[in-house]
Amino acid sequence: MTGRLFVIGTGPGNPDQMTPEARRAVEASTAFFGYFPYLDRLDLRPDQVKVASDNREELSRAEAALARAAAGEAVCVVSGGDPGVFAMAAAVCEAIDAGPAEWKTVDLTVVPGVTAMLAVAARIGAPLGHDFCAISLSDNLKPWDVIEKRLRLVAEAGLVIALYNPISKARPWQLGRAFALLREILPAATPVVFGRAAGRPDERMLVMPLGEAEAERADMATCVVIGSPETRTIARPGLPDLVYTPRFYREPSR
Amino acid sequence: MTGRLFVIGTGPGNPDQMTPEARRAVEASTAFFGYFPYLDRLDLRPDQVKVASDNREELSRAEAALARAAAGEAVCVVSGGDPGVFAMAAAVCEAIDAGPAEWKTVDLTVVPGVTAMLAVAARIGAPLGHDFCAISLSDNLKPWDVIEKRLRLVAEAGLVIALYNPISKARPWQLGRAFALLREILPAATPVVFGRAAGRPDERMLVMPLGEAEAERADMATCVVIGSPETRTIARPGLPDLVYTPRFYREPSR
Repeated sequence: MTGRLFVIGTGPGNPDQMTPEARRAVEASTAFFGYFPYLDRLDLRPDQVKVASDNREELSRAEAALARAAAGEAVCVVSGGDPGVFAMAAAVCEAIDAGPAEWKTVDLTVVPGVTAMLAVAARIGAPLGHDFCAISLSDNLKPWDVIEKRLRLVAEAGLVIALYNPISKARPWQLGRAFALLREILPAATPVVFGRAAGRPDERMLVMPLGEAEAERADMATCVVIGSPETRTIARPGLPDLVYTPRFYREPSR
Repeated sequence: MTGRLFVIGTGPGNPDQMTPEARRAVEASTAFFGYFPYLDRLDLRPDQVKVASDNREELSRAEAALARAAAGEAVCVVSGGDPGVFAMAAAVCEAIDAGPAEWKTVDLTVVPGVTAMLAVAARIGAPLGHDFCAISLSDNLKPWDVIEKRLRLVAEAGLVIALYNPISKARPWQLGRAFALLREILPAATPVVFGRAAGRPDERMLVMPLGEAEAERADMATCVVIGSPETRTIARPGLPDLVYTPRFYREPSR
């Protein structure tokens, strides 16, 4: 007997930004696995059970959810944002890949959501309006020299850069190092957006030029978006600046 | 007197993937500007007016919407997917930047949505599970040599690559050229996902190794996701293969 496994994204944390498809998956499930604060976003019925766990326990969480689904239950693994971007969908696939044969036949549905960089971009204008990338600054799962190499190459490519996991207590220096490295390649005036908790009551959006960007402006709830040389800022009287990247590419004028 | 301007994304086209926030913006607006097929996704009231226009008319569409909002109306600009990714939010910002002063004080709200690559990724597993980029293959707005340079650099960086606007009648050869270029850098076994109309009734998902990838498998409704050297495929008995990129980076074993 085989149950179902949903892997959903709640969106950035504003209930209005969670899709009906994700809400339906929640209604259809009886056991919920996820990081505490993401599970807290859900209003569950008395018959629905939460199994909360901490950060960095993603693989064992995925295994526990798969075991329960394989035993016949409708199970929901809950990510913030989109489950496919630096989140639980990859952990579930890793567990399926390495796990017992019956996990491969679990009825798996990944439900997409609004990932943080999209919510941040929307609140500030359109910084992701042209070619961009998303890079996790966490060196828990990849060596720091790989991160540096990637940052250099994408900056040379002229892509806008969205940084996920920019900073934490255990990783205090990485974002400052990334800014220093990018200052060697990008103009000092390049806008940097610190988008914290976009769409939630404690939202805070801040824009600084790369030349002055300070890592301390970010925390674990922040997605940092670094413009390309094309990215522009629009001053608006009485309103916050807009930051956007035009759809067209202008040849450098030097 | 100043109205409001919403710039929304409908998501990939499945009504269940459109957020409540986007739906609310639709209810609050009386004039709708967008590309025909995106406007057709909306169920409007008799007092709500559609102003449909064609592809490649984005800037004039944005200007018309801003003029109407500045005149006091509640106006909604409609994109598919997310409005901030290769879509109308950037065109609206361009129009504000170059337009009359009163456009800068229009009450602007960009409403994020589920962009195509997230919907495609969800249907196939988790190919965007680690660092990735989104590149438009259209050379209408940027020179082809810039696109080639970007593809080389992101492939060397080891990023998964999502290609938007991969092919059209007016741009028939670009995707084939991109595959040829990437074959020089990436292993022939790298999985390529052709994700067509993800989440819609005419959805079609296809996975081929890069060594055999054929541009003809894509059309205008396709988002092409090219794996990194880390990306893996899981065969499942009686079910489609899963494609995912692990959260951790493995040192190359050569």
